[in-house]
Amino acid sequence: MHHSTKPQVIVIGGGFGGMACVRALRGVDIEIKLVDRRNFHLFQPLLYQVASGGLSPANIAAPLRSIFRRQKNIQVLLGSVVDFNLSDRTVILEDQISIPFDYLIVATGSTHHYFGRDAEWEPLAPGLKTIEDATEIRRRVLTAFEQAERTVDLAKRASLLTFVVVGGGPTGVEMAGSICELAHQSMKNDFRSIDPASARIILIENSKLILDKYHVSLSETATRDLKALGAEIWNETRLLEIFTDHVIVSQGGNAKRLETNTVIWAAGVKACRLGKKLADAMQTPNQVDRSGRVVVDSQCAVTGHPNIFVIGDLAAFSAPNGNTLPGVAPVAVQQGDYVGGLIAKSVRGSRPTQPFQYWDKGNMATIGRSRAIVEAGKIRMSGKIAWLVWLFIHIMYLARFENRILVLFQWFWNYISRNRTARLITGAKEQNVQDVTLPH
Amino acid sequence: MHHSTKPQVIVIGGGFGGMACVRALRGVDIEIKLVDRRNFHLFQPLLYQVASGGLSPANIAAPLRSIFRRQKNIQVLLGSVVDFNLSDRTVILEDQISIPFDYLIVATGSTHHYFGRDAEWEPLAPGLKTIEDATEIRRRVLTAFEQAERTVDLAKRASLLTFVVVGGGPTGVEMAGSICELAHQSMKNDFRSIDPASARIILIENSKLILDKYHVSLSETATRDLKALGAEIWNETRLLEIFTDHVIVSQGGNAKRLETNTVIWAAGVKACRLGKKLADAMQTPNQVDRSGRVVVDSQCAVTGHPNIFVIGDLAAFSAPNGNTLPGVAPVAVQQGDYVGGLIAKSVRGSRPTQPFQYWDKGNMATIGRSRAIVEAGKIRMSGKIAWLVWLFIHIMYLARFENRILVLFQWFWNYISRNRTARLITGAKEQNVQDVTLPH
Repeated sequence: MHHSTKPQVIVIGGGFGGMACVRALRGVDIEIKLVDRRNFHLFQPLLYQVASGGLSPANIAAPLRSIFRRQKNIQVLLGSVVDFNLSDRTVILEDQISIPFDYLIVATGSTHHYFGRDAEWEPLAPGLKTIEDATEIRRRVLTAFEQAERTVDLAKRASLLTFVVVGGGPTGVEMAGSICELAHQSMKNDFRSIDPASARIILIENSKLILDKYHVSLSETATRDLKALGAEIWNETRLLEIFTDHVIVSQGGNAKRLETNTVIWAAGVKACRLGKKLADAMQTPNQVDRSGRVVVDSQCAVTGHPNIFVIGDLAAFSAPNGNTLPGVAPVAVQQGDYVGGLIAKSVRGSRPTQPFQYWDKGNMATIGRSRAIVEAGKIRMSGKIAWLVWLFIHIMYLARFENRILVLFQWFWNYISRNRTARLITGAKEQNVQDVTLPH
Repeated sequence: MHHSTKPQVIVIGGGFGGMACVRALRGVDIEIKLVDRRNFHLFQPLLYQVASGGLSPANIAAPLRSIFRRQKNIQVLLGSVVDFNLSDRTVILEDQISIPFDYLIVATGSTHHYFGRDAEWEPLAPGLKTIEDATEIRRRVLTAFEQAERTVDLAKRASLLTFVVVGGGPTGVEMAGSICELAHQSMKNDFRSIDPASARIILIENSKLILDKYHVSLSETATRDLKALGAEIWNETRLLEIFTDHVIVSQGGNAKRLETNTVIWAAGVKACRLGKKLADAMQTPNQVDRSGRVVVDSQCAVTGHPNIFVIGDLAAFSAPNGNTLPGVAPVAVQQGDYVGGLIAKSVRGSRPTQPFQYWDKGNMATIGRSRAIVEAGKIRMSGKIAWLVWLFIHIMYLARFENRILVLFQWFWNYISRNRTARLITGAKEQNVQDVTLPH
């Protein structure tokens, strides 16, 4: 790493927040280092499409290097930050190399949270955060159908054809909807011994309604749409235990056993561990909240370090109304954009004083291949129109990437053919002789 | 597995041979079981495109179930054959389930062969047979560039930017050519500390010429084209040792050390182990030749069992001129087609007597994105026209699959943009909790 007199900016994490921050710094006379453990930006909102065989990983991931090829003030580094040294203002990578910074943006996001049962439940119920998570879920779902086709034991067959999705938020709803379509439509004629349409897809939700952050009318529409696709929705149901061949849930205080070989986790996230590392380096352990997020001020900076910012899912930002902003992509993008702009002005000599303001453009979730719900302020939409809005917004975002046309094309193809061309069972082999995924 | 009075046909392996055989049996009043360890047919000739980030795995793989969705006389079974019982005419799957057959076709192909050094060399120099091989090579090649960008040690950087491809046959030439394009074109502007164009791509070949099965003029053209792309060709060079950070080769009797962190194997294949199992079950160990292939008669059947056929790379078929047919896709396809037709006529009561005849339509290999060599009888072509012929023939074959349009589109896109959109470093994580890849 060479050194120069230009202000040094380090951005950790190439997700929505980090990307937006780097983009906002385009053309500014600084040197940016974007550090990520992976060599690509991942469009997480479409991961469920990979998990259900509708899209290929490369359709929703773009190499960071190629995104920033033409932005000459940034260098991408594949690496894992393991610690911070705030007295000499450096971050330390996994191979003990230190990189100095004048401005630091930490944007490493969140990971799965199994309510204290991480070690036991993670292997049994993969979540949906990474490409590997998605291909692993795809492998498990497809393998269950394959095993069901081969078994003559009817009870085992029923268990193999039961899929449990835990968590009735947008990810859980999208996942359940797309497994329904996979089983009931795409694979309809593919088997000889089993009828894939007999597969049960069960969505388990703690509270009274799925998608409970939405207006009750949308939540009810989503429930109806999801049931129309063939899913069962078990509301007010709490997951007690997960085993390889069954789960135990609690409904109205009664424990109930459900035979299943495939459980997918969409229930909880927690901030990634780097937040805690930062708080430790700051010697202010209270800087992290209960779910591991780093408390930031109105400029997304941490206490006492106006040039160290935390954005996106890793940040706990209190809106003027007292609520902490949710861990969604638009918050990360807007914070990244804001912090980038703030740094650009700072290096030019005048740090702005105005605080970050979140503009909530609304929320949306899809239910299967042609239905969605959209909520933006007082506007509420559902059905096909909402799905077109959803599609348009996602395409617009993906349009920043070079692989946009392919995704559009593959969607269109799947839409007209009701097929899923990426139904591959892969990765089921030891292969990591020179493993380079870096620890967090 | 239910039983019926219809003739039972088992096809093991859904590659070129097995697929062609099943297709040829369309509409015949039999029950076919196609057993494969993977749930997809893989178009192996384009694997190198996956390994170099040009195509996604799903672009060159199609789920077997969806290929045969409409052929009602076939059931696809995900499974691994572990043994044969010829006295009661059954094959035994990995879970000890036996399936009875009246006709058996074994078409499980070949695997890498490291000249007796398999255990040591396979982890150091992956070959190119499976989707996982291809994504592993992609991961290693891309990771080497990433590490080179981060290191300040110039010797280490040079070693990281040296790529060795072992074997100057079509696979080695295609692999070397596409790494050249990746380094010298696609990633040209992607790095800040290194110049990817300085990467050395070295093709090591034992004999005097690469592609030595072709006419010497084509072989020389390919050499020139590959050098124009930036590859070094080390002819008459024998690989002696592979280590994690260097290789030792022998040139003219002198040992030479070459620093490299990435070695790709394209030098040898051997028949897969099921051939030996079949010979053991037949109690005729001489049925397999030196490279593990099963010796078959003029109808592709094995000695004493006219209804047991071995086709494709696993078969040693002697042509009338005494030569054993090569392990290439056209041989497998034609044998599969022939055996399928033979069985169709047999079950109708009249087994034909004519032997299998191979029609050699010629061979071809690509060198980078717009050059190829084609040899068909006395016709020899090279350059752009040969590449268009190569492209046309491959598209025609892929056109049988549903994902044909996507591949065409992605090729076209890569061609005009000189980009590679599938440059993802993935799979670098332990993930196989319920591993289903089955042993051979």
